[in-house]
Amino acid sequence: MDKLSFQNPLFTTYVIAASVMILKAVTMSWLTVVRMMQVRGGFRSPEDIKKTVLNPNPSAEQLAPNEYVDRIRRIQLNDLENLPFFLVSGFLFILTEPSLMLAQWLLYGYVISRLLHFAAYFTARTHDTRATLWTVGSLILIFMCCWTLLVALWQ
Amino acid sequence: MDKLSFQNPLFTTYVIAASVMILKAVTMSWLTVVRMMQVRGGFRSPEDIKKTVLNPNPSAEQLAPNEYVDRIRRIQLNDLENLPFFLVSGFLFILTEPSLMLAQWLLYGYVISRLLHFAAYFTARTHDTRATLWTVGSLILIFMCCWTLLVALWQ
Amino acid sequence: MDKLSFQNPLFTTYVIAASVMILKAVTMSWLTVVRMMQVRGGFRSPEDIKKTVLNPNPSAEQLAPNEYVDRIRRIQLNDLENLPFFLVSGFLFILTEPSLMLAQWLLYGYVISRLLHFAAYFTARTHDTRATLWTVGSLILIFMCCWTLLVALWQ
Repeated sequence: MDKLSFQNPLFTTYVIAASVMILKAVTMSWLTVVRMMQVRGGFRSPEDIKKTVLNPNPSAEQLAPNEYVDRIRRIQLNDLENLPFFLVSGFLFILTEPSLMLAQWLLYGYVISRLLHFAAYFTARTHDTRATLWTVGSLILIFMCCWTLLVALWQ
Repeated sequence: MDKLSFQNPLFTTYVIAASVMILKAVTMSWLTVVRMMQVRGGFRSPEDIKKTVLNPNPSAEQLAPNEYVDRIRRIQLNDLENLPFFLVSGFLFILTEPSLMLAQWLLYGYVISRLLHFAAYFTARTHDTRATLWTVGSLILIFMCCWTLLVALWQ
Repeated sequence: MDKLSFQNPLFTTYVIAASVMILKAVTMSWLTVVRMMQVRGGFRSPEDIKKTVLNPNPSAEQLAPNEYVDRIRRIQLNDLENLPFFLVSGFLFILTEPSLMLAQWLLYGYVISRLLHFAAYFTARTHDTRATLWTVGSLILIFMCCWTLLVALWQ
């Protein structure tokens, strides 16, 4: 069967996991926008304090760092450090044709670990909670990547 | 037909869009280099103010933030927040075999929105202009991602 | 032959290069964790100075920038600016079916350039050394991307 067919359950498992993660990542950008609008600040470019329709009462303070906005930026940076590598590693992993159950555990497990990591970071849980959830995702990523590498080297 | 064949117009549409976006992203790195050379500053590591062939007259001020360089870094960070997800989402989207016209509108539309976003950011247009152009690209990305997810779920 | 088969030496060349690069990128995250544990600092979120099992003696200084930790963060940011684009560009490049020797030179050459770049950055070599190694990788990436674009345009 065509490995990249939407009739292939391994491939659709990957597509579902990848799509949810991409939507999650894009949501961080929109959440940053929402929070910048709420506090009318957390901007970063000098031209952002020009008077415009969206910013009718500009002030220099709008360029100051804003923790309410920066929290989302940190979450987003964490996504950038993790998701692009998951997206490629997950794709190559399902091309090794592992068992469907293993693929579902790893790919959906990764998605769940990242959504819980977001919830913990968003609500400012302790570093230990956040780190534990990040570790689960990171170990899944390392496992998939090593598995794929070994399959490639042993062929 | 092989979905990943360069005879498949859906695939070549993706390849053209993806290649232009990757070249765009790489250009940001080179533009940062060019600007750092122009102002002889905007460096970030302590060892960057050692005397070398490329930096014959080092000074501690070279490590200070430099808006002329940092503008490109902000543009590049915006690329990192968007392009990797577009590259994966666009790939999965054309694998769902949409109509060629739809794929061309969305993929080339995304490319154009990002090039205009760069032009607006580079020339320091208002936040409203930049935000509008970013929104176009983001909505295209969300549309492709939801489309792909629905195809995967409905199979 | 199936382009995405692990019997296809072009594909396995890509898989090996991609897997090594992903593991390299993930290692940066772990290295950041190790250094944060060593210096008990370099944290970034207000909640990171709550008393927990992993941080039994918290203090406000733990949130101050820490060069020992920030060096790894800069290396990681450099990865984020380069690796996701290599991962996609390398994949599309091997789909153009170049000669195996060319693919091995470019893909493995890229991997070696990035590992040396890491070694130079990690040990704080001069900017010139680091920049030279980065340039090698960047030129390989640009070459692969232009090659792929031309193949797509000429079909």
